[in-house]
Amino acid sequence: MGVEALFEPRSIAVIGASEKPGKIGYAVMKNLVEYGYEGKIYAVNVKGVEIKVGNRVFKSYKSILDVPDEVDMAVIVVPAKFVPQVVEQCGQKGVKVLPIISSGFGELGEEGKKVEEQIVETAHKYGMRILGPNIFGVVYTPKKINATFGPTDVLPGKLALVSQSGALGIALMGWTILEKVGLSALVSIGNKSDLDDADMLDYFENDDNTGAILIYMEGVKDGRKFMETAKRVSMKKPIIVIKAGRSERGAKAAASHTGSLAGSDKIYEAAFKQSGVLRAITIGEAFDWARTLSNLPEPAGENVVILTNGGGIGVMATDAAEEEGLHLYDNLEDLKVFANYMPPFGSYKNPVDLTGMAGAEGYEGAVKAALENPNMHAIAVLYCQTAVLDPRDLADIVIREYNASGRKKPLVVAIVGGIEAKEAIDRLNEEGIPAYPEPERAIKSLAALYRWSNWKNRQKKE
Amino acid sequence: MGVEALFEPRSIAVIGASEKPGKIGYAVMKNLVEYGYEGKIYAVNVKGVEIKVGNRVFKSYKSILDVPDEVDMAVIVVPAKFVPQVVEQCGQKGVKVLPIISSGFGELGEEGKKVEEQIVETAHKYGMRILGPNIFGVVYTPKKINATFGPTDVLPGKLALVSQSGALGIALMGWTILEKVGLSALVSIGNKSDLDDADMLDYFENDDNTGAILIYMEGVKDGRKFMETAKRVSMKKPIIVIKAGRSERGAKAAASHTGSLAGSDKIYEAAFKQSGVLRAITIGEAFDWARTLSNLPEPAGENVVILTNGGGIGVMATDAAEEEGLHLYDNLEDLKVFANYMPPFGSYKNPVDLTGMAGAEGYEGAVKAALENPNMHAIAVLYCQTAVLDPRDLADIVIREYNASGRKKPLVVAIVGGIEAKEAIDRLNEEGIPAYPEPERAIKSLAALYRWSNWKNRQKKE
Repeated sequence: MGVEALFEPRSIAVIGASEKPGKIGYAVMKNLVEYGYEGKIYAVNVKGVEIKVGNRVFKSYKSILDVPDEVDMAVIVVPAKFVPQVVEQCGQKGVKVLPIISSGFGELGEEGKKVEEQIVETAHKYGMRILGPNIFGVVYTPKKINATFGPTDVLPGKLALVSQSGALGIALMGWTILEKVGLSALVSIGNKSDLDDADMLDYFENDDNTGAILIYMEGVKDGRKFMETAKRVSMKKPIIVIKAGRSERGAKAAASHTGSLAGSDKIYEAAFKQSGVLRAITIGEAFDWARTLSNLPEPAGENVVILTNGGGIGVMATDAAEEEGLHLYDNLEDLKVFANYMPPFGSYKNPVDLTGMAGAEGYEGAVKAALENPNMHAIAVLYCQTAVLDPRDLADIVIREYNASGRKKPLVVAIVGGIEAKEAIDRLNEEGIPAYPEPERAIKSLAALYRWSNWKNRQKKE
Repeated sequence: MGVEALFEPRSIAVIGASEKPGKIGYAVMKNLVEYGYEGKIYAVNVKGVEIKVGNRVFKSYKSILDVPDEVDMAVIVVPAKFVPQVVEQCGQKGVKVLPIISSGFGELGEEGKKVEEQIVETAHKYGMRILGPNIFGVVYTPKKINATFGPTDVLPGKLALVSQSGALGIALMGWTILEKVGLSALVSIGNKSDLDDADMLDYFENDDNTGAILIYMEGVKDGRKFMETAKRVSMKKPIIVIKAGRSERGAKAAASHTGSLAGSDKIYEAAFKQSGVLRAITIGEAFDWARTLSNLPEPAGENVVILTNGGGIGVMATDAAEEEGLHLYDNLEDLKVFANYMPPFGSYKNPVDLTGMAGAEGYEGAVKAALENPNMHAIAVLYCQTAVLDPRDLADIVIREYNASGRKKPLVVAIVGGIEAKEAIDRLNEEGIPAYPEPERAIKSLAALYRWSNWKNRQKKE
């Protein structure tokens, strides 16, 4: 179908590759090389210039037709007016998929839209698929592909991120690097002339490298197709959507920005609910949930256990759990095990208060006990930075115990504190253990996992 | 009164000062020296050891009575059993205020509570005041005082932070450093045997260095006193409170942790509302609001203007503004000025979309125009990181224009992006211009300012 070639191409050509740093045609070459793509890379440039990236030198071909090899994916960055001709040549060459970064099409109005349609027609004639136009590219970390003009060092992980907005998409790409959100893929879908959100869902549904999908959406063209696909995919993997325009005024502003219909927000809301899609209100919330949903297994039951060294953050987490409808495990016979890991004035009632004196041994024992007990289905480990235990050591303990347990139940972490706490949080996130600087954010992310899991279970019964 | 001596002591003694790094009695000495306190510092240690901090050497006195000078504040870190005697000696010496870091009093039960009461009686006999016991100390940045065993490099600013919890308080101290929240003061009030939240409010009410007060509270002893003080102080400065235990289960957990009454949350909620106190649900929310409330002037009217380079984040901000009841300015005659700073496909309707092409000139012109127009009462500057304008340059533009305008109306900033965006946000916050990584957080913080301002205006009318 061609979509696979977007993520697993055996060779990539950049049409409009440039030798000048600062140009998009250079940035894409640079990212492909520096992110470590192991397939063949071909540069196409009408002037036939030499392109240097680090200590690699690429000769460039004047046309894709001159490339002496099969090309699976051709990234197109030439000016809009040359795109139809380039697409035709790609078809003749037998390219499979075309991410078209070039802008100046449907986003400018009716005329550009017509050109878009012609391009798609040409592509389909040759069995090619088009991503875009008007995009910033595509990333697929399992194959070390960064074919974008955004930042280079995307953190590998299990979240597939799909953005309709180019500008916000690049900004979010930077955000994932800063905030240690690991990505399997990042796809800019732009004008969606051919491939759209639903096509991406189709691919990620069966992609073992992807655990969850996050879509920044401004609007969908084919609502029914999206909904049906989303509903089917949600049975396998969680889908998170950010779609602004909830308020009347926000919807109006969105309409003038994207040309989507105002007032249709209720329809989206209902469609998301029906198809198991989790709608996040803010970017922060979306990524908070994504950390948990892309990395953790589903809980086997409703019993949540909160472990803490601070009464205050324990209470905050409990408030959040109650408000989110989570069930704190109450069986004192089982919870009593935690008494072994706390001083006499601690409390093994859930939230389990290991007290401010809790050190490495206390946390290690308590985390292990919670992981081992089959009646405890999900764990929130909270830590308020003290002099007793360096938060980075806590992070190492959690990583070790969670790995040793086989990661069979969901476990989230919250660490409140300063620089060391931030380092500990980053370390955990880099290991795919969702960690947050506030107890409520950990609990709400766990709640999002339960919301998805419960929706799935209800669907199965129906 | 003695409270002034807590923030403006001419000399400080540390009773229980230690020569051993790792000891609290050393950490307090170290922080006093390294944070740059300019008054006299005296070490008191029964063994008379020498204490080295960097290249300063302190001889220590065996008793406070041996110090050959007046002492305004004595920080006490000796074991609990020696505290009564030390307090008596401080009284004889004429010390004015005693932060007692030592623990082992009321928090252990009735017996400790009695000792606490005796200590307070002794202190009052001599006209001394007590902070604590069971605290981590006190910070007052305008006088370069860091008399805590927490982190050293507190960022100076306009927020006074008061924490009842020692553990969480130290963690929050680290958080303010990490997140660039500038503090005027940080007070650990612990067991509140003498000085309490209300006394702190009394002081900060008239402290020109403090713009807003944030209290982490587990419970109050004298509700009427707190409420009356808070209501009076709220007429001058905003007060933010974090108090966990909203849910039934959370309240129960809080009760077992702090001994406060469960089920009283509704009473707190009503009291906060009546006295103009803003209750924040999470730590993050509290500090978000605090940045804006401690640094910005009150708006002169309801008209909010949103400037953005990204349609998507403009819509998100608009959604948040509508939900928070903010009024987006609608006068197109006035808004038309922004057309001068955008390409033809931009939109000067509020939210004002300068488009993804907006660079330094566009933002500079638009920010300036918004600051100059007296009908625009509050401004939210949003920026989605693009290649056109480095977010750090945007930060510099906003700092320059806001300072040039005399900072007469509230202005908040949100920048979505990666590492450079984070640096820009930090730079703005260090300059006392509230900046956030998400549009909604900027808008909600501005809304908190409006909530406080509106409460004040209603009170004046009554």
